[in-house]
Amino acid sequence: MKILSPATSANLGPGFDSLGLAIKLYNEITITEQSFSQISISGEGENNPSLKKNNSFVNIFNSTLSELGLKGKNFRFDFKNAIPLSRGLGSSSAIIISAIFAAYKIAGFSLSKNKLVDLGLAYEPHPDNIAPCAHGGFCVSILKGNSVITKKATLSEDLRAVVVVPPIKISTAASRSALQASYSRSDCVSNLSHASLMSAAFVSGDYELLRSCGVDKMHEDARMKAVPELFKIREIAYQNGALLSTLSGSGSSFFNLVYKNDAKKLKNLLASEFSSFSVNAYELDNDGVQII
Amino acid sequence: MKILSPATSANLGPGFDSLGLAIKLYNEITITEQSFSQISISGEGENNPSLKKNNSFVNIFNSTLSELGLKGKNFRFDFKNAIPLSRGLGSSSAIIISAIFAAYKIAGFSLSKNKLVDLGLAYEPHPDNIAPCAHGGFCVSILKGNSVITKKATLSEDLRAVVVVPPIKISTAASRSALQASYSRSDCVSNLSHASLMSAAFVSGDYELLRSCGVDKMHEDARMKAVPELFKIREIAYQNGALLSTLSGSGSSFFNLVYKNDAKKLKNLLASEFSSFSVNAYELDNDGVQII
Repeated sequence: MKILSPATSANLGPGFDSLGLAIKLYNEITITEQSFSQISISGEGENNPSLKKNNSFVNIFNSTLSELGLKGKNFRFDFKNAIPLSRGLGSSSAIIISAIFAAYKIAGFSLSKNKLVDLGLAYEPHPDNIAPCAHGGFCVSILKGNSVITKKATLSEDLRAVVVVPPIKISTAASRSALQASYSRSDCVSNLSHASLMSAAFVSGDYELLRSCGVDKMHEDARMKAVPELFKIREIAYQNGALLSTLSGSGSSFFNLVYKNDAKKLKNLLASEFSSFSVNAYELDNDGVQII
Repeated sequence: MKILSPATSANLGPGFDSLGLAIKLYNEITITEQSFSQISISGEGENNPSLKKNNSFVNIFNSTLSELGLKGKNFRFDFKNAIPLSRGLGSSSAIIISAIFAAYKIAGFSLSKNKLVDLGLAYEPHPDNIAPCAHGGFCVSILKGNSVITKKATLSEDLRAVVVVPPIKISTAASRSALQASYSRSDCVSNLSHASLMSAAFVSGDYELLRSCGVDKMHEDARMKAVPELFKIREIAYQNGALLSTLSGSGSSFFNLVYKNDAKKLKNLLASEFSSFSVNAYELDNDGVQII
């Protein structure tokens, strides 16, 4: 069985812990039953031996299989990882969602995407990466008890993500603990109004509105100080057609949404200006995690 | 010239200062040029002589006419006011929007609804009543400098507003000053995620989603304590089919959104339980302020 699990960009603009979307940048996992356990990793993490000894995907997969009553089987796992690690592109959520999804498939149980996200909450308490990783598209999510309620909007084929990845890892937990604990009423209203307009823009396909939505008062500028070049990237992106230019998750990556006709120019501009950063243009994903 | 200006329900659910919608409950203003100034008021405010001496509509109308270079004319104003005063149903916004709208019409200048809302900001600094009063429908709005950017969603004819009006006036300004000045990150995320989902629900017409959206952590429960019966109204509404049950503006009115088949039952239930409160069912308005 072969599974594709997409990268995601969350905390989207003003949408702290709530809004995210999926990118056609995938981890590919091949799972084959055999008489002994075996792991191979290529791509991201291939030079880190600890990822073979204590592998999150394998742990979540085995734990889920066990909960489903399927024990004592062995598998070969071949990981082809394209999602950068600890860069705010949802690599952890891609692992969580694909591991649970794979376990249910192999155990022969049906699993809705909504239930998949609910199960993912046990490993990742915020829904803004796991929801688009499961569903694809743009997702607005709320927590309701131990459940996630998500509205998905399909993303146009005319859109591209120009993603800038600095050579700097950021731990979400450490980055989170450095944020302020409370917000003024006006900052709170700013985020909720801009996030609401952003959701309306994605759901209606009125992408021009996004140009006014990329204002965050909760975390973005504070976190961007760890990589000051990001301020310049945002400036260049908005000067060159970006509909939205925003920190991806808790960083260090930067996510720029553009029309496909503007993607190549912006990618080349940013690549030449920030030669130590990786810059790539991707289509958006509307499928979420899938068996291929 | 005869103008209809709708009531509005703002601070909708989690959408503090940002989300609102228009109701088919109108103030009707007739303006006739004549040789001397004259005001008649029937309905709301008819027993308050100060509303004739210092009339907000006339003041804003004359000030706007004057800015447009039209001076020295006199008019007869006949107000038929159906929107309750100081009850959180947008009576002030109805006056502001209709006065500016009327002045531009009478002066012979064109005026887009977007520009109308921008002009309204001079009199009312939050866009969540003035936007739906001008545009009709459900409106999500942000402030951008001295402008308002709004996305409007048309409301289904299958929806009804069951509006409960207690016999208690609430001043928005006084009520606002009693609110807390800052919010925890989790309260802020709760409001922004629920407001975003609510916007997605209205824009997509997926009204069932609204049942999960009516959670506010910024003002509602604090303000409802002024009229404790409102807690019971919310409970009854949700037990009897309400998609959304929420304080209207800063109160004292309560706004319940239901499918039209549930409207009569809920109206009768609430009217019999709270006999000193006015309870009515209305259609939603999709036109905003209009000449008829």
